[in-house]
Amino acid sequence: MPNMSDTRIPVGLVGVTGYTGIELTRVLAGHPSLRLARATSRSEAGKKLSSLYPFLSGPGALGEMGGLTVTQPDPDDIAGACKLAFLAVPHKTAQEIAAALVERGVKVVDLSADFRLRDKATYEKWYATPHTQPGLLAEAVYGLPEIYREKMKKARLIANPGCYPTSAILGLMPALQAGLVHTDDIVVDSKSGTTGAGRKAAVGSLFCEVSDSFKAYNLTKHRHTPEIEQEVSLLAKTPVALSFNTHLLPINRGILTTIYTRLKNPVDTEAVREVYAARYAGEDLVRVLPVGSLPETRHVRGTMFCDIGVVVDERIGRLIIISVIDNLCRGASGQAVLGANLMLGLPEKQGLPLAPLVP
Amino acid sequence: MPNMSDTRIPVGLVGVTGYTGIELTRVLAGHPSLRLARATSRSEAGKKLSSLYPFLSGPGALGEMGGLTVTQPDPDDIAGACKLAFLAVPHKTAQEIAAALVERGVKVVDLSADFRLRDKATYEKWYATPHTQPGLLAEAVYGLPEIYREKMKKARLIANPGCYPTSAILGLMPALQAGLVHTDDIVVDSKSGTTGAGRKAAVGSLFCEVSDSFKAYNLTKHRHTPEIEQEVSLLAKTPVALSFNTHLLPINRGILTTIYTRLKNPVDTEAVREVYAARYAGEDLVRVLPVGSLPETRHVRGTMFCDIGVVVDERIGRLIIISVIDNLCRGASGQAVLGANLMLGLPEKQGLPLAPLVP
Amino acid sequence: MPNMSDTRIPVGLVGVTGYTGIELTRVLAGHPSLRLARATSRSEAGKKLSSLYPFLSGPGALGEMGGLTVTQPDPDDIAGACKLAFLAVPHKTAQEIAAALVERGVKVVDLSADFRLRDKATYEKWYATPHTQPGLLAEAVYGLPEIYREKMKKARLIANPGCYPTSAILGLMPALQAGLVHTDDIVVDSKSGTTGAGRKAAVGSLFCEVSDSFKAYNLTKHRHTPEIEQEVSLLAKTPVALSFNTHLLPINRGILTTIYTRLKNPVDTEAVREVYAARYAGEDLVRVLPVGSLPETRHVRGTMFCDIGVVVDERIGRLIIISVIDNLCRGASGQAVLGANLMLGLPEKQGLPLAPLVP
Amino acid sequence: MPNMSDTRIPVGLVGVTGYTGIELTRVLAGHPSLRLARATSRSEAGKKLSSLYPFLSGPGALGEMGGLTVTQPDPDDIAGACKLAFLAVPHKTAQEIAAALVERGVKVVDLSADFRLRDKATYEKWYATPHTQPGLLAEAVYGLPEIYREKMKKARLIANPGCYPTSAILGLMPALQAGLVHTDDIVVDSKSGTTGAGRKAAVGSLFCEVSDSFKAYNLTKHRHTPEIEQEVSLLAKTPVALSFNTHLLPINRGILTTIYTRLKNPVDTEAVREVYAARYAGEDLVRVLPVGSLPETRHVRGTMFCDIGVVVDERIGRLIIISVIDNLCRGASGQAVLGANLMLGLPEKQGLPLAPLVP
Repeated sequence: MPNMSDTRIPVGLVGVTGYTGIELTRVLAGHPSLRLARATSRSEAGKKLSSLYPFLSGPGALGEMGGLTVTQPDPDDIAGACKLAFLAVPHKTAQEIAAALVERGVKVVDLSADFRLRDKATYEKWYATPHTQPGLLAEAVYGLPEIYREKMKKARLIANPGCYPTSAILGLMPALQAGLVHTDDIVVDSKSGTTGAGRKAAVGSLFCEVSDSFKAYNLTKHRHTPEIEQEVSLLAKTPVALSFNTHLLPINRGILTTIYTRLKNPVDTEAVREVYAARYAGEDLVRVLPVGSLPETRHVRGTMFCDIGVVVDERIGRLIIISVIDNLCRGASGQAVLGANLMLGLPEKQGLPLAPLVP
Repeated sequence: MPNMSDTRIPVGLVGVTGYTGIELTRVLAGHPSLRLARATSRSEAGKKLSSLYPFLSGPGALGEMGGLTVTQPDPDDIAGACKLAFLAVPHKTAQEIAAALVERGVKVVDLSADFRLRDKATYEKWYATPHTQPGLLAEAVYGLPEIYREKMKKARLIANPGCYPTSAILGLMPALQAGLVHTDDIVVDSKSGTTGAGRKAAVGSLFCEVSDSFKAYNLTKHRHTPEIEQEVSLLAKTPVALSFNTHLLPINRGILTTIYTRLKNPVDTEAVREVYAARYAGEDLVRVLPVGSLPETRHVRGTMFCDIGVVVDERIGRLIIISVIDNLCRGASGQAVLGANLMLGLPEKQGLPLAPLVP
Repeated sequence: MPNMSDTRIPVGLVGVTGYTGIELTRVLAGHPSLRLARATSRSEAGKKLSSLYPFLSGPGALGEMGGLTVTQPDPDDIAGACKLAFLAVPHKTAQEIAAALVERGVKVVDLSADFRLRDKATYEKWYATPHTQPGLLAEAVYGLPEIYREKMKKARLIANPGCYPTSAILGLMPALQAGLVHTDDIVVDSKSGTTGAGRKAAVGSLFCEVSDSFKAYNLTKHRHTPEIEQEVSLLAKTPVALSFNTHLLPINRGILTTIYTRLKNPVDTEAVREVYAARYAGEDLVRVLPVGSLPETRHVRGTMFCDIGVVVDERIGRLIIISVIDNLCRGASGQAVLGANLMLGLPEKQGLPLAPLVP
Repeated sequence: MPNMSDTRIPVGLVGVTGYTGIELTRVLAGHPSLRLARATSRSEAGKKLSSLYPFLSGPGALGEMGGLTVTQPDPDDIAGACKLAFLAVPHKTAQEIAAALVERGVKVVDLSADFRLRDKATYEKWYATPHTQPGLLAEAVYGLPEIYREKMKKARLIANPGCYPTSAILGLMPALQAGLVHTDDIVVDSKSGTTGAGRKAAVGSLFCEVSDSFKAYNLTKHRHTPEIEQEVSLLAKTPVALSFNTHLLPINRGILTTIYTRLKNPVDTEAVREVYAARYAGEDLVRVLPVGSLPETRHVRGTMFCDIGVVVDERIGRLIIISVIDNLCRGASGQAVLGANLMLGLPEKQGLPLAPLVP
């Protein structure tokens, strides 16, 4: 029951039971201009949010969110209560909900993969399901601010980038735009924290299956491959097919992506670092590390930063790029709130977490 | 298909899908006199064991076990193939299977709780289910070798002790038998690794819910309470009601139990340590640490040891006892194999893991 | 080089190389009214703070702090630049620095143990070093807001409470003030994350010595014992000697304290919970959980909250209290900033982290 | 004081304070034909081994080793007491000790890098120290049984392979020997558990710096690079320069190496898997996983196995190879004992751990 003097903009969260939903409540708890007005879940409707998440309790926005009653995802209800909605539901499910909300004048940030691939056929091939909203697909804006900031401001629907793609695209962009590397010999070796596997009860995600271990998974088949290739090809101005591979880390949060490229011409680390620093000069949320420093996932834990380190292996003519993000914050819910900020005319970084939890 | 010269004794494992089942295969892989002849699971029957557990592959017993086909738990089939069976199924389920096997002349080590409590009513109250085998309950031997070694040798059915009770009973025994402490003021504060929660797919056991966190659970209601009280009362020769409480550690294996007692008479740490060393003088699997040393779960990781440290807090007249075990090995499958060794006339420690994996 | 329109209050941090120093920079990064003007370290003086902590980089206060040059701890220099200083140095070292700063009109929040014990002799016995500032010792205010809020507002020197004592005192307070429990039978069993062991290079704190393990340490000798007893005795209005014992958790942050008490009269969990809720009714930073809920360290990760759960074991007449805090935030640097807020006339909770990082 | 009927062969361990030293005691504890007769350490001489490692206590070889008194590393003393010595000392230190022992007729397995590189100049360049034993360098046998088994049997000095090289070489061997891949486009992306960083007290190896984080380190400069290139070039029969890069995992044990290669001709995963299975057909300690399975470090925890999985990315013509080992066992001390077995005429796999600790 907001009072009249509450000028915060009401937003909704469709799908509250996963880690991206939880993370969104964390980000919103610190946001001065947004107010969570609806939280929906088919399975948990009727419960107080605080009964699902006991940590949503206390003074201010925390307790306010905890007091919300979870509702069924009804587009009319959401449209009546919210200016903007975040969709934290599985792909495929998001298609219809997004359409229903946009139709009712609600701005939408979709955290699923449903509107990330511009090519309907590519989506249908990799996700093995039809896309029923081709018009909206054409209209959706890929929500990576370092590339699409201006389009995001005018968007009705933002396709929030995937976690791996965020790290890979930001890592490759300067090298590709500056034409430093060959585009036919790119290997992207990514390692993700286990929140990336979602909050579904599955034996493979149990503590005792994941902890003190490490494995690769989904090799050659990960659905973020076409997403990365789409954006990287646009940056390189030529079709790029690359090797993208994923591993599961026994940590909660964080993606580290090691990118192997072949240099077109001999160049040293300092020079490459200059290219990266220049490209990201005006970008507050990308930190290009000094020569000799390499990123660590803990340095971005809980934040919006993408930290990037570059190293030239002069002996063999390769450029190695390391980029890290927090997969839940920059790689999902934080970036979604950044998108919302832009759509709603708020300052881009407003309310976003910047100080990492170290250790 | 064992060859004729294989003189190992065939044993069966009823219930192969949990962590105690996995651990049993590990212990059996190193056992010179036992051969896994049957592995059963209602849900996985028909599969090769190696398809469930890819690590059961390679030379010798490892590959031999991996090549086994999982079967339905059929008492006749087990009785035809095995001299002894380990039951690694949930409580209640074990009652009928144990009876069917014992009836067919198969020795049984039951890892469930079904035959641990001597009093049928106590069982039925704490486990909220009827006990259908009161005769067998009366006959079953509680499988803690430091107390019941001789009875175990002659048993048809061993009730393998619970993990927490193993640590608590071994920790309290010398103090109680020597009459060092009051029996009406005992607090048992236990902390267990997450394998103790089992291998069921449950959100609460996911890596991201358990790692980097710690919590108490089941306070005042843990079903190991009556089991501990039963054995401790026998040791103290008086009914003991104690405070038993459990916590979940973000580690795979290991239980550390901190026991708080009140001394009857002033005594120093060295004297108490003498009492403990004397009680366990002939016991190879209990290590009483030197004064000034405290046990760590990693020092018993993967082994049969119970390490015990004692400290007298002279300022307040309390004796604090710390005991650690590996909950899967000493606290479950390893102790079960020890029981089998005794029942089958093999040397007590044969094939049991003693060298810890450190780190 | 702050500009003239920067109205934030300049503060100093004496001792920047430990985890409490790092945590203080995190809290200050989100504080609207405080500005880090000095950061000192004998060993690191001359370096940029960002070269020690690469994550202190980026827009706003983060980058501002990273740009600071670490200085030698010179009281005159600090007094010239700062209104208040946080001391994050070892005990004993803090005595002289605190005195020098207070003398120069700088308000001080001391995170060490040097001014926590009111009795000089007790300090000298447990810390095995003389106390050279008895006058200041008498004046210092113990910085637990739930007890000393009003005194803290007027203090020149706040003795920031220890991490374990914060959890133990807040856990015991309502029961003692309401006279629910006997004061001669209290066991405090605490478990702390490894940041509590500090950032000193020591084999015992290596990842491979701590991870996947658990141990007790320092039994009967922990220096937080007299601190807890001092405050608990004041609350109980009678001298209390209790059993306080500590364990090391393989997690970064978090203390969970399990407190065992004996009830004076039969009472159920709901009634005890009422007593706790009433005592903390006006306290935003203590959350008394609903009956049936138990605290978890992750629910307070990175925050100022103390979460408390109570359970009556009616069978044996005991009250068990569980309290959790983040040892670095509520248990150290966050509580220190709260103290600074009060001393400087700022709103008590201003700038303090409330939304936990989950997972 | 071994009795006369003890026919085990006495061996020595030079350098007992690191993780490879600890691991060697674990492997020897289960070895029927070797007896630890000497354990040396400059810093710990005079102490009982059990006072360094409390887990070396109990019945049999465990307690026997714990009872050993650590000595200064004296070649005459070692030669008098041992037939073979394991050197677990840093590189450079091993050179002189190895020479002194070989001279005295003691067989040596050197776990350092001192005798791994055949080319003196390459050693001196990468390790930045002179090699003073060129003769012994020429004679030493690289201790990877899958390549050098026969030479190892006759060796006086075995250079035990590095952990990363073991995983990389075994992963690449079949593809290179079968000529499946181009040799000028190989990327080796390795991730190691933290025992690989050693047991030195260093802030960077503290639990709170490593846990819940992930980073790359030493890029383009890791000293295992020339070791891998040396053996891979021999296998490929052409000089190979490759990209080798390392990352630090928050786990105790385990290396997972992801190898990216470019196929010469189109071929599917099944066909590559056949090549691998054929190459390792007689090798008990390499397990080539079925198509569709990928290795996990936990499946080899504590064992001698190298598990390998292969995947062809037909879309882009690449072969991806994943190999995992336990860096302490197969990657160091276990492989060293295998070398000792061969040198001493014992069965190759005698006493080696095969059953993994899962979980």
